[in-house]
Amino acid sequence: MTDWLDDIKWTEDGLVPAIAQDSVTGRVLMFAWMNRESLAMTVEKGEAVYYSRSRQKLWHKGEESGHTQKIKSIRLDCDGDVILMSIEQTGGIACHTGRESCFYKEFVNGQWQAVDDVIKDPKDIYE
Amino acid sequence: MTDWLDDIKWTEDGLVPAIAQDSVTGRVLMFAWMNRESLAMTVEKGEAVYYSRSRQKLWHKGEESGHTQKIKSIRLDCDGDVILMSIEQTGGIACHTGRESCFYKEFVNGQWQAVDDVIKDPKDIYE
Repeated sequence: MTDWLDDIKWTEDGLVPAIAQDSVTGRVLMFAWMNRESLAMTVEKGEAVYYSRSRQKLWHKGEESGHTQKIKSIRLDCDGDVILMSIEQTGGIACHTGRESCFYKEFVNGQWQAVDDVIKDPKDIYE
Repeated sequence: MTDWLDDIKWTEDGLVPAIAQDSVTGRVLMFAWMNRESLAMTVEKGEAVYYSRSRQKLWHKGEESGHTQKIKSIRLDCDGDVILMSIEQTGGIACHTGRESCFYKEFVNGQWQAVDDVIKDPKDIYE
């Protein structure tokens, strides 16, 4: 029943990179890692569940902030080693800095510049 | 002059994941890795240059196929460890299978199904 998980080329650490893209705007919102269990839970719940490498545990995105990511579709790349999810971002905020996307720094004039506004103060997100 | 490269949190192997997104359609086309040299060359050339982990060398995307990726903008994520490029895909084909995007397999009914058409036979791309 879980053959589809065997189609994935996991890293030596048993992980696969996962990209979350907004299903409406097409904006790339974040990038994180998944292990077998988190990907299986993502499919089961219909919400993104990552694996936190720093905390070494499952990370149901939005469990603290409420900013869950509802799965619209899941894709796998040609090499079978990267996951792309089309998601609906609850609250319109994917980044822990309170911004829509984690990719808010743009390379301008030889520097990384924060070009997107903070939608909500993180202090008000993680109370 | 290259302080911006020091802002990136490189992996132990000196790499950073890079996502290429079509600047017009917003479609995520591919995912690969870069090292310092390849990212510096990407900026210098204005075309995506990756680092091939399997071949252990710089990989100027399109050098064989002609399917180069012109850089429109480059972003860095909140943690400074993932690159997102907005690109113009020459030939409209990013995948070595001859498809627009490497993410052509969708999770449908418990299986990964190829849902996108091949635009050009790889035999005619890599002659």
